[in-house]
Amino acid sequence: MFSVALSLKEHLEVNDVGHLTLHGVDLVELAGRYGTPLFVFDEATLVGNFERFRRAFESFYPKVLVCYSIKTNNNLAICRILREKGAYAEVSSALDLHIALKAGFPGERIIYDGPFKPADALEKAIKEHVLLINCESLAELERLDKVAESLGVRQAVGLRVNPFRDPGFSKYFSLNKLVNAAYCNLDGKFGFSLDEAYAAFEKALKFKNLSVEGIMAHPYRDATRVLPPLISELREGLGIKFKYVNVGGGFYSGDVRFVGGKELISDFLRRKIGLKSKLTEEVAVPSIEAVAKALLSEIGNSLKELSDPVLIVEPGRFITSSAGILLVRVDHVKSAGGYKWAFVDAGTNILPRFSAVELRRVVVANKASDDPCEEYNVSGPLLYSDDFITLKAQLPEVCEGDILAILCCGAYTLSRSNQFLYPRPAALLVGSNSEVRVIRERETFEDVFYKDRNI
Amino acid sequence: MFSVALSLKEHLEVNDVGHLTLHGVDLVELAGRYGTPLFVFDEATLVGNFERFRRAFESFYPKVLVCYSIKTNNNLAICRILREKGAYAEVSSALDLHIALKAGFPGERIIYDGPFKPADALEKAIKEHVLLINCESLAELERLDKVAESLGVRQAVGLRVNPFRDPGFSKYFSLNKLVNAAYCNLDGKFGFSLDEAYAAFEKALKFKNLSVEGIMAHPYRDATRVLPPLISELREGLGIKFKYVNVGGGFYSGDVRFVGGKELISDFLRRKIGLKSKLTEEVAVPSIEAVAKALLSEIGNSLKELSDPVLIVEPGRFITSSAGILLVRVDHVKSAGGYKWAFVDAGTNILPRFSAVELRRVVVANKASDDPCEEYNVSGPLLYSDDFITLKAQLPEVCEGDILAILCCGAYTLSRSNQFLYPRPAALLVGSNSEVRVIRERETFEDVFYKDRNI
Repeated sequence: MFSVALSLKEHLEVNDVGHLTLHGVDLVELAGRYGTPLFVFDEATLVGNFERFRRAFESFYPKVLVCYSIKTNNNLAICRILREKGAYAEVSSALDLHIALKAGFPGERIIYDGPFKPADALEKAIKEHVLLINCESLAELERLDKVAESLGVRQAVGLRVNPFRDPGFSKYFSLNKLVNAAYCNLDGKFGFSLDEAYAAFEKALKFKNLSVEGIMAHPYRDATRVLPPLISELREGLGIKFKYVNVGGGFYSGDVRFVGGKELISDFLRRKIGLKSKLTEEVAVPSIEAVAKALLSEIGNSLKELSDPVLIVEPGRFITSSAGILLVRVDHVKSAGGYKWAFVDAGTNILPRFSAVELRRVVVANKASDDPCEEYNVSGPLLYSDDFITLKAQLPEVCEGDILAILCCGAYTLSRSNQFLYPRPAALLVGSNSEVRVIRERETFEDVFYKDRNI
Repeated sequence: MFSVALSLKEHLEVNDVGHLTLHGVDLVELAGRYGTPLFVFDEATLVGNFERFRRAFESFYPKVLVCYSIKTNNNLAICRILREKGAYAEVSSALDLHIALKAGFPGERIIYDGPFKPADALEKAIKEHVLLINCESLAELERLDKVAESLGVRQAVGLRVNPFRDPGFSKYFSLNKLVNAAYCNLDGKFGFSLDEAYAAFEKALKFKNLSVEGIMAHPYRDATRVLPPLISELREGLGIKFKYVNVGGGFYSGDVRFVGGKELISDFLRRKIGLKSKLTEEVAVPSIEAVAKALLSEIGNSLKELSDPVLIVEPGRFITSSAGILLVRVDHVKSAGGYKWAFVDAGTNILPRFSAVELRRVVVANKASDDPCEEYNVSGPLLYSDDFITLKAQLPEVCEGDILAILCCGAYTLSRSNQFLYPRPAALLVGSNSEVRVIRERETFEDVFYKDRNI
C-alpha cells in the first residue's frame, strides 16, 4: 500500500509453509507460543534506523547529537539498545527522565524538553548533570534559576521558540487561520512566540544561574524556516553565539499513512465512477538522507555564522515505528455496511491514533505468499466505531484464526497504550541471530486493577 | 457554563476560607494531603445518579433492569457500591466480566455485550450463569452454540440489531451519507443490519443450544426508532415473544459539553463582532425523567404486545460522570497565541476525549468564592497541541499552585487512562458522612514499566 522502511522489509521473508518470518523466526509460531496480541520488535531494524538517521545527518554536518525521544517507545530494553549504540535521550517528563536513567543514559547524554517541568524534576535533572534544559516560558526560567541557585550550579539552557504565528485576522485571511483561531490557537501554547523571542532571550541572559547556550524550534520543517533569521538577529543584537541549535523532531519514514477526510471522500468518489483507488498506491516519501541534506542547506549558513555549533535532532517515530510489528488474531469476519470487516483482538487500546484515519500495512502472516483478492477493514475489539486498525486493506481471504501482522507499530503504542477493556500484551525482541527474548510481559486481568482498593 | 448534575452541586459548598468542599471535606486540603492529580468520587452522587435513573424508568415501567456499563468506570469500589445498591452489570469483554465478578455481581445479574467474544470468555460467562448474552454476528451465534453444547446448557441470547442504515446512494443523497460511506460506514460494523435482522433471528431460532429471548439496539435514541416495527414483524412472522428488550445506553446528563468545529467557529465570529459567547450559556438538557417517559411512550405499545417483557437499559456515563472530580495543580500560567493558558499536571492521559473539543466545568478550588474575571484555556502537561482539559473557561485569576477542580470526570477516565509521560493518579471516595477512603493508589514511576524486562 505504501512504503515500509527498507530495513524491516529486508528481514521479512516467507517460509516454505507460507508463513511470514523475521530473521527466519516464524511469526505464526511466535503468535501461537506467546499468544496474541503480541508486539515483536526487530533489533536490527531498530539499530539500523538509528544508525541510518545518524549517518544521514553526519554526512552533511559533523557535530550532530541524535537525541532519541523516549516518549515514542519507553520500553527499557528498546531504550537500552539505543543508548548502547550511542544515542542521546530526549526526555519530556520526570517519568521519561527516570526511564532514561534506568536504561543507562548518563545525564550528560540527556536533554530535557517540554512545557511542563515541576521544580523537583528540574532539581533531579540538574543533579544528574543533564546536558541541556529547553525552557518554554518565563515562569520556567525563573523556577529553573532558583533551583540552580539552590544547588550552586550554572545550568545550560535553551529557549524554545514557537514557529507558528498567531493566526489573527490582521494580515491574510484563510479558512485554516479561522479554524485555528476558533480552536484557541492550540499550537501557540508551546515555547516563546516569535514576537516575544528576542525579549525572552534578553531576559534569559540576565539570570545569574542560567547559561543561555541553545535555541530550539519544533518540528524541524518549521524550525528551519524560522531559526536562521532569528539566530542572526540574536547574534547581532545580543551577541549570543549558540552552542546548541535544536531543530526538534517530526521526521517521518512513510510507514503509517495519515489520511484526512477529504482524501477518503475523493477516493470513495473515484471508485464510484470506476477509477482506481489512490489509497492503494505507493506514496513517495523523501529519504532521510534527502531530508538531512535539505535541512542542512536551509540552516547551514546560520550554523557557520555561529562557528559550527552542535546540531540537535530529536527523532522518535523514525527510529522505532518500523521496528515494531503487532501480531493479532482474527476472531471472526463479517460483512456489514457494504464492507468486509475482520475483527481482531487488539485495537486502539494499544494502537492509539493521532489522526482521524491511519492506514497501516497488514500481512496475513499464515498466508504470506497468497495474493490479495479482497478488501477488508480491520476492526479492534472495543465498542466504538472508530476502533479500527486499518481501512481498505487488500488481503488474501481472511478467516477466523488467521494471524495478521500489522507492520510499523513501534511508535507511540507501548507508551500510549491503555487497559480499556483488555490487559496489555507482551513484547518480544528478535535479534539478527534469530534469538527471541521477552522485553515486556503480558498483563493479567489482575494487573489491570492492582492499584484498586476494594474497600 | 453548563449544568452540573444536581446531586453533585448539592454536596459542593464553599467554606469560610473560600475553599471548595465536598460533604464538608476541604478539596484543597485533600489535594495537599494526597498530591495531585487526584480523582475524588462522591459516593452520594454515584448512588443518587443510579437511584434517580432507576426510579425514572420504574415510574413509567415496572420491569426494568438497570445494567451498569462496567467499562465506564471499572474501579472495584465503584462497581461494588453500585452492585450493593441493586445495579445489574453490563460487561463488554472478558476483563469486564472478571471485574464484575470480583466486585461481587452474581452471574445472574450480568449481561454480556460487544462484537468480540472469544470462546473461552463465552465459556466462563456460561459457567457463571450470566443472564443474557447479546450476539452480534452469525459467527458468534455458531460459536456460542458450540460452547453451550459442550457445557450441556441452553443459553439465553439476544440479538443486537444495528439501527444505522447502510448509507448507500440508492435513496437520498446527503453530505453526511457521503462522509459516512467514505469512512467505510464505521457504525455499520456492529450487530445485525436491519436488512438482515429478520433472517438472522430465523437462523438463531434453529440453534439447539440457544434460547432466543432478547432483542437489542444501541444507542437508545435509535433503538426506540427501529425496535417497535421490527418487534411486530418478528412476532407476527416468527412468533418470537421476547423476554428482554434492550435499548442500550447513550444516556447523557449534560455534564460535559461536546463541541464541534462549526460551533467553535461560529462562536469565535460572534465574539469578533461583539456578540456574547454561546459557549458560556447554560444548555438545557432533558431530565432523565423526561427521557424515560419519552422512551417508554415510543416503545410502550411494543412492550404491551409482548406481554410486558423486561426492559434493559445500560447507562454508564450518566451514573459515574458527575460523581467524579479531578483535582489538578496549576504549574504556571502564560499568555500565548492570543489566549491565557493555565498549565496543569494532568491532561488527556487521564481525561481522554471522545470528540474534538469537550468543554468541562472548572472551579478554582482555593478561590471558590471569587468571581470569574478572565478567560483561560487549561492545558495538560503532554507535548501535543490537543492536550487540553478545557477551552475558554471563565475563572478568577489563576496562579501557580492553585488547585483546579475539574467537575464531572467520573466516566471513561480511570478505565481509559494511559501512562503516557506520567504515572496515573490515586482515587478517593468521599462518603456522605465525610469519611475519605483511598479506592485506588497512586502509581509510582516503577509501576509504569513493572512488566518490562531490561534484558
